[in-house]
Amino acid sequence: MTEPVSAAAAAANEAIRQASPALCDLLSPLGRRVVFPNDIPFQAAQARGKTFNATIGQITDGAGGALPLHSLVSGLEAMDPERRNRAVLYSPGVGFPSLRTAWRSRQRRGVAAEVPSTMPFVTVGLSHGLSLLADLFAGPGRAVVTPEPYWGNYRQCFEVRTGAHLVPAPSIVDGKFPPDTFARALESLPSGEPAMVILNFPSNPGGYSPTQRERQQLVASLVGVAADRPLLVLCDDAYAGLVFEEGVPRESLFWELIDQHPNLIPAKVDGATKEVSFFGGRVGFVTFPFSPDSEIAAALESKLQCLLRAALGSPVAVSQQLLEAALTSETLEAEIEELRRTLGHRCEVLKQALATTSRELLTPMPFNSGCFALLELPEELGLTSEEVRLHLLAEHDTGLVAIAPRYLRIAFCSVSAAALPELVRRVELAVRELRR
Amino acid sequence: MTEPVSAAAAAANEAIRQASPALCDLLSPLGRRVVFPNDIPFQAAQARGKTFNATIGQITDGAGGALPLHSLVSGLEAMDPERRNRAVLYSPGVGFPSLRTAWRSRQRRGVAAEVPSTMPFVTVGLSHGLSLLADLFAGPGRAVVTPEPYWGNYRQCFEVRTGAHLVPAPSIVDGKFPPDTFARALESLPSGEPAMVILNFPSNPGGYSPTQRERQQLVASLVGVAADRPLLVLCDDAYAGLVFEEGVPRESLFWELIDQHPNLIPAKVDGATKEVSFFGGRVGFVTFPFSPDSEIAAALESKLQCLLRAALGSPVAVSQQLLEAALTSETLEAEIEELRRTLGHRCEVLKQALATTSRELLTPMPFNSGCFALLELPEELGLTSEEVRLHLLAEHDTGLVAIAPRYLRIAFCSVSAAALPELVRRVELAVRELRR
Repeated sequence: MTEPVSAAAAAANEAIRQASPALCDLLSPLGRRVVFPNDIPFQAAQARGKTFNATIGQITDGAGGALPLHSLVSGLEAMDPERRNRAVLYSPGVGFPSLRTAWRSRQRRGVAAEVPSTMPFVTVGLSHGLSLLADLFAGPGRAVVTPEPYWGNYRQCFEVRTGAHLVPAPSIVDGKFPPDTFARALESLPSGEPAMVILNFPSNPGGYSPTQRERQQLVASLVGVAADRPLLVLCDDAYAGLVFEEGVPRESLFWELIDQHPNLIPAKVDGATKEVSFFGGRVGFVTFPFSPDSEIAAALESKLQCLLRAALGSPVAVSQQLLEAALTSETLEAEIEELRRTLGHRCEVLKQALATTSRELLTPMPFNSGCFALLELPEELGLTSEEVRLHLLAEHDTGLVAIAPRYLRIAFCSVSAAALPELVRRVELAVRELRR
Repeated sequence: MTEPVSAAAAAANEAIRQASPALCDLLSPLGRRVVFPNDIPFQAAQARGKTFNATIGQITDGAGGALPLHSLVSGLEAMDPERRNRAVLYSPGVGFPSLRTAWRSRQRRGVAAEVPSTMPFVTVGLSHGLSLLADLFAGPGRAVVTPEPYWGNYRQCFEVRTGAHLVPAPSIVDGKFPPDTFARALESLPSGEPAMVILNFPSNPGGYSPTQRERQQLVASLVGVAADRPLLVLCDDAYAGLVFEEGVPRESLFWELIDQHPNLIPAKVDGATKEVSFFGGRVGFVTFPFSPDSEIAAALESKLQCLLRAALGSPVAVSQQLLEAALTSETLEAEIEELRRTLGHRCEVLKQALATTSRELLTPMPFNSGCFALLELPEELGLTSEEVRLHLLAEHDTGLVAIAPRYLRIAFCSVSAAALPELVRRVELAVRELRR
């Protein structure tokens, strides 16, 4: 049934099977055949530190120093010279080791030492982390459960590229989040067939994070699924930490999903884009629930490294250096907390503005975190969100995102608190004008 | 025969067919089905400039200004404030328009105004440009002709990822480059079957650029192929401009291949990695031979944008800003020329050092450009290059890259001129020690 793969790929697959038969069953055809080849980067790694090293095709002074053009690096003059040198040369294919270590420490704040996690693999932003996991574990016919409504790019990333099929799991039913929605979405899939689930909390487009009780129910329902099939649970932690409601957990569900069932393997995608407010840098990470020095961790890293090299060469050195500098700063966490408060204030202002709107015109979905809030247009109005979006653009100088059929997403992360009440007023007005 | 695609994809495919039936026939199954969707970035583009813009999930002050963390951007303090703001926020999915314009001007130096080329599409480095073209035009069963020996990553990028099959074209026969090698490699392919050819000059691993006469023969032979089949010619211009021999053209073959035959479509991949010595930045470009305002250009850009978004979200803003700043500098070209002279000097020193070595131990292949030189071990020695590589690592503190079966690649770009004679001495010594 499975196509033949190289001896090196077969060895990596076997290392995965030894530690986790379920994860091996979850590999896509592409995931089965990739393995980091013994070519230039492999040979260059072996030559590191040699007096005469003529392995890598990058221009240096002959002693590992870059020969940067002044016109290019003048914008980096405030950077530490050693960092600047690393910023303009190639990054290691897996990312800079010191950055990986620093990010791992930050990820594991409050996590018990015995809970295993790999060294995070550096990606070119969060979407790249998703696409690497799509390459490894999705593929023709694979069921990928997504919350509904979902971030539209999941379709491109999983379905268009790999041929997997998305299985929507309603994330709001009667105005509430149903914790067993992902398990229910898989009920009709033949028993034993491997599947993926995407968890995205705080959610995009919903801006929702589940309560402790909802999390427990969610985890239990996924353990129930795992009794029946191998299940990869992708934790898309893009908005990690941006939780504004007291008592709602801020930690990733990744940690709670580890070692719950041999058939249930969580994978974590996170990064600097939102967590460190570095949208233009493109630094993300992929992390698995295995010990860093395990053979399965090495096999998975080899596969990721092959996929990254095949599509991108290497990750972004300059952004990694900026991020690593930030992670060594003593004030970073306070700066992040200040930004969280700014967003939390906008979240609160938006909530209050929405509270006074007419339920005949729009229904706010529950939101408590992240960057977004979602409005639903009452079905009775006979309006699509696209109609309202275009009217808001044309007549009210206001841009929102329409999600079919009747959702409007407000990105409060990119609107000042002072402007939010007027924005809400215009949305309500636009719906009123269009009402039939 | 072809799988169904969405209405939007069908419209893009039809726009391509109208202008170039051959290019439409060249599309892979994935290439046929991708088209930029009407989701968040599309809607955000429509909302640009609106007073109330709540479309994009990036954290701003509400007026398009970033809210960067001090610890993150302190390394960018020397950057112009507006550039720094753009550096930390999302890049447009196609890249910054002003950068694209500036790169296009640089690409087209000396090119006649009537020769068409698209606005270059910004990629995350050169390998990403290759992988985008692999996604669009390679795929299961597609023949992709590569020079032999070739850069090993072509296998991962075209064969492992997409299922295409590489067809090697010997790039050195009797110590010389045979200009008709690519055409010959396709002779056994059934008539009419679409194919790809990769041209890589200056070459990796060969360090070779063809003479004007060889270029003419090469172009003529590809025109001959096009009489028989649709042919995409991918110009991998990673090392563009780094030519050290007087009289050997420095310009990309891309320009000479335009409008030679309706079945022959060149595509250009280039970027800042080597041309502007920015290895860690990951900025590349993909350019097609069509007018920027043509419908086919728009259709191809829509497909590229979909692929980039699906796998990466957006390109690297900080690197684009650094590159754009460099391109506006009046001294940039002089800095690039100085770097070219530095490499040219190393090339010359290496040539002289190799001239005195024994032809019974190693044969230098012709090289005149780029970053590399290639040595061949005489077959009579009964040695593989891997044996010599490992011996050099273990006994002579020297790292080279081995390419099966009997090639050794010297990256003179990463060795000082002063060290090259001793490096050559060690290579010769290692071969002598291993000779059976």
